Amino acid sequence: MAPGGYMGNVLRLNLTEGKVIKEPLPPEDVLRAWLGGRGLGVYYMLKEVDPKVDPLSPANKAIVATGPLTGVTGVPSSGRWCSVTKAPLTNTIHDAQSGGKFGPELKFAGFDAVIIEGASEKPVYLWIHDGEAEIRDAKHLWGKDTHATTEAIREELAPEIGVEEAEGIKVLTIGPAGENLSKIACLINDKARAAGRGGHGAVWGSKKLKAIAVRGHMTPSVAREDVFEEISEKSVDIIKKAPVTAQALPKYGTAVLVNIINQHGVLPTRNFQTGVFQTAERISGERIAEEIMDWKKQEEETCWGCPISCARYTRIEKPPFTGEGGGPEYETVWALGAQTGTDDLAAVSKANYLCNELGLDTISMGHTIGTLMELVEKGKVPQEKLRGLKVSWGNGEALVELTWRTAYRSGIGDELSEGALRLAQRYGAPELAMVVRGQELPAYDPRGVQGHGLAYATSNRGGCHLRAYLISAEVLGIPELLDRFSTAGKGKWVKRFQDSFATIDSLIVCKFVTFAYGNDILASQLSAVTGWDVSVEEFERIGERIYNAERAFNALSFGDGEEHDTLPKRLLKEPMPEGPSKGHVVKLNEMLPEYYAERGWVKGRPTKAKLKELGLDWVAEMLERENLLYA
Amino acid sequence: MAPGGYMGNVLRLNLTEGKVIKEPLPPEDVLRAWLGGRGLGVYYMLKEVDPKVDPLSPANKAIVATGPLTGVTGVPSSGRWCSVTKAPLTNTIHDAQSGGKFGPELKFAGFDAVIIEGASEKPVYLWIHDGEAEIRDAKHLWGKDTHATTEAIREELAPEIGVEEAEGIKVLTIGPAGENLSKIACLINDKARAAGRGGHGAVWGSKKLKAIAVRGHMTPSVAREDVFEEISEKSVDIIKKAPVTAQALPKYGTAVLVNIINQHGVLPTRNFQTGVFQTAERISGERIAEEIMDWKKQEEETCWGCPISCARYTRIEKPPFTGEGGGPEYETVWALGAQTGTDDLAAVSKANYLCNELGLDTISMGHTIGTLMELVEKGKVPQEKLRGLKVSWGNGEALVELTWRTAYRSGIGDELSEGALRLAQRYGAPELAMVVRGQELPAYDPRGVQGHGLAYATSNRGGCHLRAYLISAEVLGIPELLDRFSTAGKGKWVKRFQDSFATIDSLIVCKFVTFAYGNDILASQLSAVTGWDVSVEEFERIGERIYNAERAFNALSFGDGEEHDTLPKRLLKEPMPEGPSKGHVVKLNEMLPEYYAERGWVKGRPTKAKLKELGLDWVAEMLERENLLYA
Repeated sequence: MAPGGYMGNVLRLNLTEGKVIKEPLPPEDVLRAWLGGRGLGVYYMLKEVDPKVDPLSPANKAIVATGPLTGVTGVPSSGRWCSVTKAPLTNTIHDAQSGGKFGPELKFAGFDAVIIEGASEKPVYLWIHDGEAEIRDAKHLWGKDTHATTEAIREELAPEIGVEEAEGIKVLTIGPAGENLSKIACLINDKARAAGRGGHGAVWGSKKLKAIAVRGHMTPSVAREDVFEEISEKSVDIIKKAPVTAQALPKYGTAVLVNIINQHGVLPTRNFQTGVFQTAERISGERIAEEIMDWKKQEEETCWGCPISCARYTRIEKPPFTGEGGGPEYETVWALGAQTGTDDLAAVSKANYLCNELGLDTISMGHTIGTLMELVEKGKVPQEKLRGLKVSWGNGEALVELTWRTAYRSGIGDELSEGALRLAQRYGAPELAMVVRGQELPAYDPRGVQGHGLAYATSNRGGCHLRAYLISAEVLGIPELLDRFSTAGKGKWVKRFQDSFATIDSLIVCKFVTFAYGNDILASQLSAVTGWDVSVEEFERIGERIYNAERAFNALSFGDGEEHDTLPKRLLKEPMPEGPSKGHVVKLNEMLPEYYAERGWVKGRPTKAKLKELGLDWVAEMLERENLLYA
Repeated sequence: MAPGGYMGNVLRLNLTEGKVIKEPLPPEDVLRAWLGGRGLGVYYMLKEVDPKVDPLSPANKAIVATGPLTGVTGVPSSGRWCSVTKAPLTNTIHDAQSGGKFGPELKFAGFDAVIIEGASEKPVYLWIHDGEAEIRDAKHLWGKDTHATTEAIREELAPEIGVEEAEGIKVLTIGPAGENLSKIACLINDKARAAGRGGHGAVWGSKKLKAIAVRGHMTPSVAREDVFEEISEKSVDIIKKAPVTAQALPKYGTAVLVNIINQHGVLPTRNFQTGVFQTAERISGERIAEEIMDWKKQEEETCWGCPISCARYTRIEKPPFTGEGGGPEYETVWALGAQTGTDDLAAVSKANYLCNELGLDTISMGHTIGTLMELVEKGKVPQEKLRGLKVSWGNGEALVELTWRTAYRSGIGDELSEGALRLAQRYGAPELAMVVRGQELPAYDPRGVQGHGLAYATSNRGGCHLRAYLISAEVLGIPELLDRFSTAGKGKWVKRFQDSFATIDSLIVCKFVTFAYGNDILASQLSAVTGWDVSVEEFERIGERIYNAERAFNALSFGDGEEHDTLPKRLLKEPMPEGPSKGHVVKLNEMLPEYYAERGWVKGRPTKAKLKELGLDWVAEMLERENLLYA
């Protein structure tokens, strides 16, 4: 029997053979080393997939995984799941995390994870119900957007399982963008929750897997119920008292950050040309709360088991932009807003709804539109390519139209759907792509947050704020306030964040709990649920193992190493032109050596000794075979 | 050898077998009976297709045809071609006519027509070049819009035939709407010319035929060059002097009609709730000319060999609606404008560009949006269906968004893509569908133009202004001004118009020449080119033959007859509420008996005697076998 928290079962969905089989989770020692979610996904990928695989070929796999804390009543903010695959946008190993209600429901249906392999000839979806799984035809769903797919699956299963039961079905699906193999296509669950980055939607599209629908009534067990209750109460209590989780996030959602980040002069504006967006306030969380929130619907949108409830449900009612839906989140209002110079909250929200319906990552979408706008501004794009559309800073109409075009590869959208780097390369200006490892950078200009810059540069999945959220320390002062312009000690901080977050992404709980409590509480939750005795040291060591394994996968994929641990030239060479971060660039050279030393890495790669220390001898052997291992 | 004007060759494209073969045109007596274009298409359909066929099944055929005058230098406005098929929107036999440059080029490439039969498993396109034809893979084109398809074909053929030669390729293609089997999907040639109505695009989509590309250097011969020159000069001379063809159309395009029709109180507004659109002037041809015309590009847009040049090329430059392209035409500004209560020329133009790119019929698209708006107004559509989009009279944003959604069957667009009748039926209000034989009515409220109402009701292809344009007589006074509120004699007029237009659609020339000259000139053009001696009587008799054959096809398809020769209840029972046509309804009962008498029809169907008289004994036999023939 699997440890507490786990359901003990994995589904292996072989699309080439049209078979789905149940298999047990790996043995307990493997689980304790990798936990679940991101860690388990990385483990399976390294064990089963050639890192050199073409991400859109049948030989790639995509793993949908929960962790031991997912869906455990009493673990705050554990309504999560993640997708792990080799990503088409980046060629890196890649995990994308999502909230909502799908993750817990997968466990209630009896499974910890689904391993998706091969490729189907015809569109299919997977239906998982109370311990049973079935591959079903999805011809009629292919082409449908994420909302329509969700509704259609519930409707077609209602006659089989009853209307009420069907209403509880949770659907994870791709939209047209994934079908059309957009490298910025995401997976959408619960209509508005995204495993957003890297193009996981395209991986599903390449496999002709439209959706996974789940419904179940089982519950994960808790090994030590006596201590668990106390830990649970304490955890919720802290969350309910901490300012960020008790006030800021519930009231204003993630976009509470807009004004804060802008006031620090690090809100990337017009494709990172500056860090100050004059009219940022117009797209802030405060404005969202005042102007477009539907508080009643918002309650329904809250992630499973979350006492924070940062989710938004909004409605825009004045033409030319009307609509409603989940979001927009902070990263979204930044990407579709400041990055494109657009301060029209309605236009931003509308494009956000469409991204969710069509299955596009809002960060990559908005970011890439901003890239196009700078390419157009600099005269790199022939006018006829745009068919008269005004592609210029601040034109909200362009956000909406380019979102449609990207999802369906219509006109210039065909090029946008490949992401910012390939777009900029096509027009001969790769230096205008603000990417790391091919992934578009998110909503913080690192020139004013040095540690965050190092986090970007060393992010295994590509430019990302969620591998190590140094903003927490450098701007919000959690767990302590660091000098954001200083480089000293940042290597150590980044490593600590990266490792902790890798563990958290494997539990899985929401990173927002770290605004309230630390790894001690999390380790105690994990211990109580599983029955293990996980110390803070072991907790962080799990993350370190994952981080090293990921880097090894990348090394095997494309020779990842120090030459990829870098940032776009603009951020290294062009001083911030104005505002509170004026004059700064990212001093990466000052931080990387410390980071490598902390990691025990040489030239951006794990050494044999480090891998051995982490119990990754078998990974070291893989690197050695390819001459990628430093002693 | 074929008569003058003809190339003598037909291509038979069998998509099931993946073969294309050349065959001769039918014998001269058949050609003289059916001419080309619409007539020839109807002939082939009756000879080769079971009228009961499912329009989207491989057993349906689609015929692309030119006529003996198409592409003959010196015949004004002969740059035309047409598509004939059994239409999915209506289940009628259906021809859709189009201008531009494709039709002549097909002849220059050596062919009068293409008969498309069967269905391919994979997307293909047909490439016709100087007498040779080849089926080519179109996997890479599937999903592309009409502009991108056109450009991609030119690009991929350039290495084979040279860049300059490739630039001259004319492409006829479907957009995503046709691929997605929208019943209002059209065929688009030369990027902005549409064989619009009835859903021909879906027929191609069902056959996985993406496009036909043509290029050639042959020219049709003229039998009697001596007289031809004189006739040609005379024809052009009359066109250059007639007010409509010399002034109104070149200056203001077809949308010159907006103010005229509105001033007569017959501009259907808000789904035919009234015939007066208060702010119609804002979407008029005069405004188009003043505000958004690109006169330089317009020259390039002119149809092959046309001295009228009514084509528009426009550009809108102020957000939230920016773009450029061909059109909008009168029927388009009506459908997307007055029919939806929208007086925003930019929004209307933008939706028009998108219809052309995505391959949607602008009339059916705008009309159906208007239908949805009334359904919403009347509370028939659950709000959640609209996802927050404000679907209400005058919201230009809705035009644009619903066009996107329709082409891709996204959200409510899935239902819009089936056309107005099926949409209204779905929401339990079929009486709100302003259709005849399932086809959405165009831009004239028949309550103030009685003869035009009869023309709608008796239109073989479904609600249409182009089978018999009584507006010409009842409003413009061409060839003579008729009392528009009177029903007397309208049966005879409608029959004359229907027969003449059927011949003209088979020549093929543009109907706009009839604003300048009559059947005498057209018959003399036809005689000079072919070498026949076609009298005006014979000329009109050809059209009568076609019209009867079409009605016979429809009778065999769905029992067409008098119960289908009708109009929506609103137009028969609800008096026009205001304006210059106030108080009127269509008095169809007063006109139908005269019409049937003129036609020699009984209960809406050709009799044996009439068919015999027209040389259609074989059609009579088909009807007889199905017990559909009245003595």
